[in-house]
Amino acid sequence: MKKFYLLALLCITLVACSDNYPKVESSMPYKVVNGTIVLEEPARQPGQESMLNYACEPMQTVRVGLIGAGGRGRGNMGVLMQIEGVEITAVCDLYQDHVDKAQKQIKDAGRPAAREYVGAEAYKQLCEADDIDLVYICTGWQMHAPIAVYALDHGKHAAIEVPAATSIKECWELVDASERNRRHCMILENCCYDKFELLALNMKQKGLLGEVFHGEGAYIHNLDPFWAGYTDSWRLDFNVKHSGDNYPTHGLGPVCQSMDINRGDKMTKLVAMSTKAMNSAEVAMRYNNNKEIAEGDQVVTLISTENGHEILIQHNVYGARPYNRLFMIAGTKGMANKYPFEWFAVDSKQAPGVAELEKYNPEMLISGMSESSIEAFNYLKQTYEHPVWTEHEQRALEVGGHGGMDYILNSRMIYCLRNGLPLDINVYDAAQWSCPVELSALSINTGFMPVQVPDFTRSDWNKTQGITFAHK
Amino acid sequence: MKKFYLLALLCITLVACSDNYPKVESSMPYKVVNGTIVLEEPARQPGQESMLNYACEPMQTVRVGLIGAGGRGRGNMGVLMQIEGVEITAVCDLYQDHVDKAQKQIKDAGRPAAREYVGAEAYKQLCEADDIDLVYICTGWQMHAPIAVYALDHGKHAAIEVPAATSIKECWELVDASERNRRHCMILENCCYDKFELLALNMKQKGLLGEVFHGEGAYIHNLDPFWAGYTDSWRLDFNVKHSGDNYPTHGLGPVCQSMDINRGDKMTKLVAMSTKAMNSAEVAMRYNNNKEIAEGDQVVTLISTENGHEILIQHNVYGARPYNRLFMIAGTKGMANKYPFEWFAVDSKQAPGVAELEKYNPEMLISGMSESSIEAFNYLKQTYEHPVWTEHEQRALEVGGHGGMDYILNSRMIYCLRNGLPLDINVYDAAQWSCPVELSALSINTGFMPVQVPDFTRSDWNKTQGITFAHK
Repeated sequence: MKKFYLLALLCITLVACSDNYPKVESSMPYKVVNGTIVLEEPARQPGQESMLNYACEPMQTVRVGLIGAGGRGRGNMGVLMQIEGVEITAVCDLYQDHVDKAQKQIKDAGRPAAREYVGAEAYKQLCEADDIDLVYICTGWQMHAPIAVYALDHGKHAAIEVPAATSIKECWELVDASERNRRHCMILENCCYDKFELLALNMKQKGLLGEVFHGEGAYIHNLDPFWAGYTDSWRLDFNVKHSGDNYPTHGLGPVCQSMDINRGDKMTKLVAMSTKAMNSAEVAMRYNNNKEIAEGDQVVTLISTENGHEILIQHNVYGARPYNRLFMIAGTKGMANKYPFEWFAVDSKQAPGVAELEKYNPEMLISGMSESSIEAFNYLKQTYEHPVWTEHEQRALEVGGHGGMDYILNSRMIYCLRNGLPLDINVYDAAQWSCPVELSALSINTGFMPVQVPDFTRSDWNKTQGITFAHK
Repeated sequence: MKKFYLLALLCITLVACSDNYPKVESSMPYKVVNGTIVLEEPARQPGQESMLNYACEPMQTVRVGLIGAGGRGRGNMGVLMQIEGVEITAVCDLYQDHVDKAQKQIKDAGRPAAREYVGAEAYKQLCEADDIDLVYICTGWQMHAPIAVYALDHGKHAAIEVPAATSIKECWELVDASERNRRHCMILENCCYDKFELLALNMKQKGLLGEVFHGEGAYIHNLDPFWAGYTDSWRLDFNVKHSGDNYPTHGLGPVCQSMDINRGDKMTKLVAMSTKAMNSAEVAMRYNNNKEIAEGDQVVTLISTENGHEILIQHNVYGARPYNRLFMIAGTKGMANKYPFEWFAVDSKQAPGVAELEKYNPEMLISGMSESSIEAFNYLKQTYEHPVWTEHEQRALEVGGHGGMDYILNSRMIYCLRNGLPLDINVYDAAQWSCPVELSALSINTGFMPVQVPDFTRSDWNKTQGITFAHK
């Protein structure tokens, strides 16, 4: 009898405990520890080494194989063809007419035709070819990581459009493929190279803002005019199937650089909330005839860091808001803000002897829109302009691409590859900036439980202090 | 033997399960359900009724007993004395010199001296007096709820400075005391009456913005010049002892009104993150000689709602940022933003036939700072000005008090009391807007677990639709 009661008690306890947190679909196995979702983190395999500060042998020419020749791919290719030491060796797409358009662009640039690969599996042959150095991936998000892993496993460097991966499993696959093959894996986050983002980074690194403890970024951009242009509606299709912030990197990348993520600090936890689907439901119905969509109109994500800082990222591609990447960083001594207009707040004591900043304390907003502060504003803009921007500005404005940042992104990458230097952005950034895609969904789908953020650097997050831009 | 193994297994299971959530100090008992902290919610006692739409009997004169005659109390008192039908019957403070200053102010206003109550327990005698209608509480936060409950239990209406309560237990005590005694309990949230906040509310209620799904508010204000002025350092003392957003209501109140919280929608869950203490630690040391402070520099709080919307509130009183209450509301058809400069985004289809808005879609920012949009900006500001602002503007700008909002707050309250009308803000607002003080701490102190937000209305949250301002 006693045995029976004990057994019954045991069963009841087990049932009571096991039901105490919501189950959620996730790409990696997880446990709940102290109320937090903790995903499994695969250990580094024997023979693999960290890719921190990795540089490959210099190369005279970077032979590029473009996979994904839609609008973005061809746009990037146009920028690449303006950079010295680049050959467009091969072009691959699902569809012949995309490849045809790319070939015309190549011909108009006075270059020899690229080798063509067409069809769903054709990317494999491109990756297997022995005359490609860099596989440049501009497909729908769903194929980013699979193609990159294939490229890396065939000895090619990979450059991937954003986000680099759409799940934690894919994030780890990129890290492992890069480490296993010792090939670069770069995320093509152009917003890191925009003028203001570089300037803010420079201000932070020069100590003007004190300790930067709060960064905000966002992708707020009404995509209504664009949905129909995505091949086979891949972008809306992804949003129909996935809740969460599906496109975090434009906001997150620059903030991570200014906050030394994986270069002195690391993400620790993430929580996210989403509104229901209102405009997004209307978009899904109108463009895709989908009766439901997983992604809500607005998603807000909060990330804590090891050094006691926090990051706030927002996402809304469904209208009713002016374009806004938010981008601001706030430190103990000042801050920099980009949208909807640029402004700063500084403590004159951080810049002693500077007449233009003498009267300022950080409660005073310094912008170019006010006569009283325009002198200080111009001083800050000129003094803290990042050398990487200055170096490339003239050419960037000629070549264009989102105001020049696409040019600088690609120019820096090609330069570092050609000169055998570490890239500005590495595979751990690719994984870290992309991981909120799934992590935000895990939080949202469990009633906002906190999720531990994987450390893709595998304990190397504080081996370096702040991003550097290598030069020979 | 089997019995032993079963018992051992049971013990191990119990231990394993019981350790799976961090324990946290909280004012109410709680359980963890599905990964969410759920606080006990006391049921309404027999004999108590909802205070929704409650109105008291009209009164010719509102006889006010001020408790807390420091800077804020005397400031409020100055505004009250400019309103018809108010008598300052009694003044109470810990310190005689504060009372003396209040008396001088009363005398300078040509009014008869108030009765005085001085000392730590003196507020009780004031509350027990039979010639007071409204107890007006401007003490340190720590005494807000205890004094209000005492006043309500002695048949007085209570008006409380912000936040009205500093714990969930205190929130329920206010609700129960108000219901038990059928006396008003109002939170003196002046920001609800600022011009732009009222305008945004009006826009939302008139349908211009569509369904409002995202609201932001904040209290970002460097208090460095003020810490020393708080009697016995009560404010810094509170922040030393409490992590979390200790001052949410200036941002939250107006957002809640524009998002129909407790008037068609309700808060469901809350998560919050805090940075570590950097400037706050320096402030605590400098002003209070405290080696540690619980409140981090910056706290960010996210709140979900029943109708699938979300609220984002921030707090930073430790410097390095210009004053900013953030205040923005975003809807499916447009948005309104206040800081650092006022702007709107609207869909011309929401205002058909309006020439000034014809060319606008919601991706276009309408502000007074741009020649191209100033016409539309002025149109919106004039057309959607809230009647409550218009009615009071002239007098508000004469009397002042944070630009006039203090005057309108108090004027509306006195008007409704004198005319036997429901107040604009009720005890459920007082509790709901104050509850993030403790809830944010619970989330922060459990590694960011989600917390279920209590429904202080006890299921009446959708009995009314949107705030109304009663007139006779």
